[in-house]
Amino acid sequence: MSGKTDMTGTKAHSKHSFPEEEIRGVYHAIESRRDIRHFIPGEIDPELLERLIKAAHHAPSVGYMQPWHFVRITDSQLRHAIHDHVEQERLNTADALEQRRDEFMKLKIEGILECSELLVVSLTSQREQYILGRRTIPEMDLASVACAIQNMWLAARAEGIGLGWVSFFEPEVLASLIKAPQGALPVAILCIGHVEHFADRPLLEETGWDSRRPLSEILSENQW
Amino acid sequence: MSGKTDMTGTKAHSKHSFPEEEIRGVYHAIESRRDIRHFIPGEIDPELLERLIKAAHHAPSVGYMQPWHFVRITDSQLRHAIHDHVEQERLNTADALEQRRDEFMKLKIEGILECSELLVVSLTSQREQYILGRRTIPEMDLASVACAIQNMWLAARAEGIGLGWVSFFEPEVLASLIKAPQGALPVAILCIGHVEHFADRPLLEETGWDSRRPLSEILSENQW
Repeated sequence: MSGKTDMTGTKAHSKHSFPEEEIRGVYHAIESRRDIRHFIPGEIDPELLERLIKAAHHAPSVGYMQPWHFVRITDSQLRHAIHDHVEQERLNTADALEQRRDEFMKLKIEGILECSELLVVSLTSQREQYILGRRTIPEMDLASVACAIQNMWLAARAEGIGLGWVSFFEPEVLASLIKAPQGALPVAILCIGHVEHFADRPLLEETGWDSRRPLSEILSENQW
Repeated sequence: MSGKTDMTGTKAHSKHSFPEEEIRGVYHAIESRRDIRHFIPGEIDPELLERLIKAAHHAPSVGYMQPWHFVRITDSQLRHAIHDHVEQERLNTADALEQRRDEFMKLKIEGILECSELLVVSLTSQREQYILGRRTIPEMDLASVACAIQNMWLAARAEGIGLGWVSFFEPEVLASLIKAPQGALPVAILCIGHVEHFADRPLLEETGWDSRRPLSEILSENQW
């Protein structure tokens, strides 16, 4: 592969391809989506939020199990309890990072108190009933939920709305806060809201935490 | 939420929103993406394949770890070996499904031999070095890979190309077939190619295997 093609430089290769502007929209969302931790005030239109949830619900799921549940947090006390727990886990992470501790502590990792809409996304209970496509890899249920969240993320970006996926928490603690049934497991706190701007590059790249790998490093032929 | 809004009925709510046609493209891809198992002959343009890989590589990843590796299978013998292993796992799954065995056996679950491009996607090795965002939930690496595959899936759909995610395999067996380094773990066989048509509904819905849950079942407020 040449590495020279622009990701958005499209030509129709199939009778099923979308119109050019629609194809551009998909790549535009993929390229400019960011993990958002800085929000500005402003309500999220309820119809827009519904479109995002529907986008998630149209994700692929292994064996069509649709193993996702969304809890919308509107109670201020609950929002603060979630924030307090995440803040504790942020400190635990800092300690675990050892020599990168100080560098990490400068990063903003979540916008739980500032975002307009807060969702907790969980794996549903009784997932052991589903075998199709996950007999050997039960974690495929998490892969399905991730696809659902990625759908939301891209749809939000297209609509000009920011979304951040926070994973700094103990699933059991969060499960208890939202009164999840036994066997259910929170996997994401989603912060959704208006943003001042979408950065050109990921925050962890801008701050020098890490850089994007060259394609040659992630792609090989027939063997690793 | 009313449940009445069309997923694609958009109004600009933000100064950062895309042009209307681009927003439509994103929702169009999300709604019409299908897990494809039936392919027709026809090459995939190398530049198109590169766009899909780049789309995957622009996915979010926990702590920016980019824990994905793609092996493109061009060797026919290797392709057949992968197919043979998946076929065995299909039979194992049929046995595990017990009373739904016969119903399952009628489903086509993969197009490994017919698709134009075959990729094996794996979690990279040495992932234990990454702590940020996955100290308490190490499986966030799989979530990142799933986001990458969902990016490819949506981009492929927009370009009119079909993609199917096959998860009927033992990761260790597949790892050995592609000579993956110790600690790496295959999570997807991706079949990519041209299709006769994209069905209106998921195959597992059309065949009566299961149905889409109502939004009210997957969404609640403040507690489950």
